[in-house]
Amino acid sequence: MIEIEARKEAASRTARLDAVFAALADPTRRAIIERLSRSEARVTEVAEPFNMSLNAVSKHIRVLEASGVVERHRKGRDHILSINTRSLDEVDGWIERMRRYWEERLDAMERLLRELKKDNELGPKDRKHGSR
Amino acid sequence: MIEIEARKEAASRTARLDAVFAALADPTRRAIIERLSRSEARVTEVAEPFNMSLNAVSKHIRVLEASGVVERHRKGRDHILSINTRSLDEVDGWIERMRRYWEERLDAMERLLRELKKDNELGPKDRKHGSR
Repeated sequence: MIEIEARKEAASRTARLDAVFAALADPTRRAIIERLSRSEARVTEVAEPFNMSLNAVSKHIRVLEASGVVERHRKGRDHILSINTRSLDEVDGWIERMRRYWEERLDAMERLLRELKKDNELGPKDRKHGSR
Repeated sequence: MIEIEARKEAASRTARLDAVFAALADPTRRAIIERLSRSEARVTEVAEPFNMSLNAVSKHIRVLEASGVVERHRKGRDHILSINTRSLDEVDGWIERMRRYWEERLDAMERLLRELKKDNELGPKDRKHGSR
């Protein structure tokens, strides 16, 4: 049972990552996230700087809501949009994990280079010593 | 002239972010990146763990190459794939920027909460003092 739950959790995490990365793959949607990262805002405020119809911006907002990156709540008659930072944390976590992998590889390469350098430094000395 | 160059650079950075995020929006492609983050590998090695045709995996690899995340070089008859870490750095940089925005907001909220708490702590004391 625990294994099934763990597998379900992994599957939904995968689906969330798919949705968040797809949501981020568009410059208008990234600009909306940048706007909302500074402060929550009404739909009309978010749409204002874009040179496109309110309807077109609303479609992008719906994609962001479906991915879980953007949340909507009502304040009287207004629809207020805000960022759900946890959704981006998950994406950040994935990239961090990749970074750790290749930083380990870079460290290993550096160690190798240092050893090669040390061998090289010893090498000429040894030869010098040998020629005396 | 400098402005045009700067605008061109911004446009190509936007296009790269679009391509990288779109490339990451697929679990097979993310798994390929995880594999290559551990070590570079031949195309056939990369394809092996997946329950799909070499052709299907090759299509995913081409998407990753087009986005700049994966690079290919030849070693004799083999095609070796590796990660271009700079492409993911750019994506990471974008997410970091968003994080800074909302961390500033969270800090501001915390300051506000601390002040409210201080006011509350002062409040009852003042009342107590007043009732003596």
